[in-house]
Amino acid sequence: MAEYEHILVKRDDATVTITMNRAARRNSLSEAHLAELLAAFEETAATDATGVVLAGAGPVFSAGHDFGDVASRDLEGVRRLLTLCTRLMRTMESVPQVVIARVHGLATAAGCQLVASCDLAVAAASAGFALPGGKGGWFCHTPAVPVARAIGRKRLMELALTGDVIDAATALEWGLVNRVVPDEDLDAAVAELLARATRGSRASKALGKQTLYAQLDRPEADAYAIAVEVMAAASQTPSAREGMASFLEKRKPEWPD
Amino acid sequence: MAEYEHILVKRDDATVTITMNRAARRNSLSEAHLAELLAAFEETAATDATGVVLAGAGPVFSAGHDFGDVASRDLEGVRRLLTLCTRLMRTMESVPQVVIARVHGLATAAGCQLVASCDLAVAAASAGFALPGGKGGWFCHTPAVPVARAIGRKRLMELALTGDVIDAATALEWGLVNRVVPDEDLDAAVAELLARATRGSRASKALGKQTLYAQLDRPEADAYAIAVEVMAAASQTPSAREGMASFLEKRKPEWPD
Amino acid sequence: MAEYEHILVKRDDATVTITMNRAARRNSLSEAHLAELLAAFEETAATDATGVVLAGAGPVFSAGHDFGDVASRDLEGVRRLLTLCTRLMRTMESVPQVVIARVHGLATAAGCQLVASCDLAVAAASAGFALPGGKGGWFCHTPAVPVARAIGRKRLMELALTGDVIDAATALEWGLVNRVVPDEDLDAAVAELLARATRGSRASKALGKQTLYAQLDRPEADAYAIAVEVMAAASQTPSAREGMASFLEKRKPEWPD
Repeated sequence: MAEYEHILVKRDDATVTITMNRAARRNSLSEAHLAELLAAFEETAATDATGVVLAGAGPVFSAGHDFGDVASRDLEGVRRLLTLCTRLMRTMESVPQVVIARVHGLATAAGCQLVASCDLAVAAASAGFALPGGKGGWFCHTPAVPVARAIGRKRLMELALTGDVIDAATALEWGLVNRVVPDEDLDAAVAELLARATRGSRASKALGKQTLYAQLDRPEADAYAIAVEVMAAASQTPSAREGMASFLEKRKPEWPD
Repeated sequence: MAEYEHILVKRDDATVTITMNRAARRNSLSEAHLAELLAAFEETAATDATGVVLAGAGPVFSAGHDFGDVASRDLEGVRRLLTLCTRLMRTMESVPQVVIARVHGLATAAGCQLVASCDLAVAAASAGFALPGGKGGWFCHTPAVPVARAIGRKRLMELALTGDVIDAATALEWGLVNRVVPDEDLDAAVAELLARATRGSRASKALGKQTLYAQLDRPEADAYAIAVEVMAAASQTPSAREGMASFLEKRKPEWPD
Repeated sequence: MAEYEHILVKRDDATVTITMNRAARRNSLSEAHLAELLAAFEETAATDATGVVLAGAGPVFSAGHDFGDVASRDLEGVRRLLTLCTRLMRTMESVPQVVIARVHGLATAAGCQLVASCDLAVAAASAGFALPGGKGGWFCHTPAVPVARAIGRKRLMELALTGDVIDAATALEWGLVNRVVPDEDLDAAVAELLARATRGSRASKALGKQTLYAQLDRPEADAYAIAVEVMAAASQTPSAREGMASFLEKRKPEWPD
């Protein structure tokens, strides 16, 4: 793995853990930090890892954009920053690995967006989530994009307009995270859910998650047009063949890819 | 009604019950089975029935595609199968009747898709739901299309990526089914909800459900453009006229269509 | 404020309260009533108010369209009425103020649509919600548009097809309202949530809510294309500058707009 300044990247077996490591800056997302996160996801995409854990070092998960980095920028400079940030979020959806957020402390603004952009999320009971632009002067326009797609509309409006923090239990009820566990069980719960989500053929899973994101938010007829073609093509892959053959032969599959 | 080999079709008063009857094959959806289901829905669409119950005989609701039928197919053969399957799901949404799933046992893969594609669903407490492609080699791309549109995104990802079974209580909480009842109350609960959903004018209800599916998943302005035109036209129908007249005259309506 | 016949419009500090005042007609939405509501929202939009409370006088919130006003109309007449109604709903989403529904009693048909079209909603515990067209002859096609976008698909189908009333607790669970409180606490709860939702820069909040509605219901890539441009431009506004400067200087912000 490459050398990074703002993040830690570690591989154990089939799992890559990417840890935001700017604790003194509450893991805020400066341009350099975003660029490293993007590079780490792109680097990981090219490996045979099956899962990625996105975590934060220190007291919070991530406080979102770094106002110290934004305040002096002109329009073009902010656009470049937000375009990079969006590219990171979309890359998390398109990498072949299953991406899971390990959320402790606060996940606010673009930090909350990171949680919404992971395929799965597990939160410590003490975690909190907010779109704090609703309290102030710079609204959380882009963080609201994936958050809106995870929770209901009225709940989105409340989160985005009040800027207030919701607790982990509320985030679970609203569908922003998949699990809430006691703080001391966080790592075990992340590992357990990720293990179940990465079973089977890596190639099949990668195509699966990429196709899910492609068909969401579209009229159903358009979504089916995508899914039918992908699923038909997928039926001819070695892993689909092995999956069906092992099922019919009542034996354990051996995934070829 | 026509003669069928893989399904049972029965009419009682205004309700048609279509029962998948390949218990020995866990009601898996071979091409012949799908073709009969489609024919039965098309046949029913042309009758004056107001509701359809979709049920399964034997220990499970439906196990989805029949790997014995899929494993030997080439790309074109699988595409034909999935296109037929999609046509069935879309037909269930477009028939004039209210379609309700009566779910017992497991509803997995395209079986889970059937539940999501019914207008309404009632589940026995012991029922379970899964997209098991997430465990293996052939991802549940097309089943995820209607499932994604019933439940939240993070929950979809969990269901699709892990392949694990969720119980009926979870399906209710996530919005995949409308009711969960003790197993012995399943038929009564299906009949009760269907009776309430088929009150009123059959013609009005048919246009209603068809327009709902047409406007969903679209930007709100597009959805309104559809709904305003349909609702204005519908105001001129005999049933709308009778509905308003009976309300204003404080009498029971007599639906003309 | 202008003089109105069917509604009451009152301003206290930064909040405008618009009260439907046709209690004898259950606040039903005649063309004249709709026109006044639209005028009041448009009038309010041009003021420096930051919030709007939409309330109903008398025993119910609103019973929806006035059948006495609809029954005698031809197609063109109904289309004009529904187009006006849709314009009201869309205007509530586009005004710069945060709009909150204060729901007591029944909110049915276009009355339920009003609740779904407010940014936020607080309900008395005794409130009820229904799309009663499902019981009769004129289906609630247009009310279902914003209701579908607040709650899940299976729940929408149940509400729209049965026409039955759901209670406030169910509406909260399904995401149709943000809060349910004892009837006697309704005004306080509305004021409390609105106060939190209107903090910060009025200009920022206005652009925020308008952009949320613009990006919803679209494929994520399209939503990001909108949100990135708006958020980059917004970063250059006086309120965003002040928000970031006050944060970095650890002082309270003074919002310039």
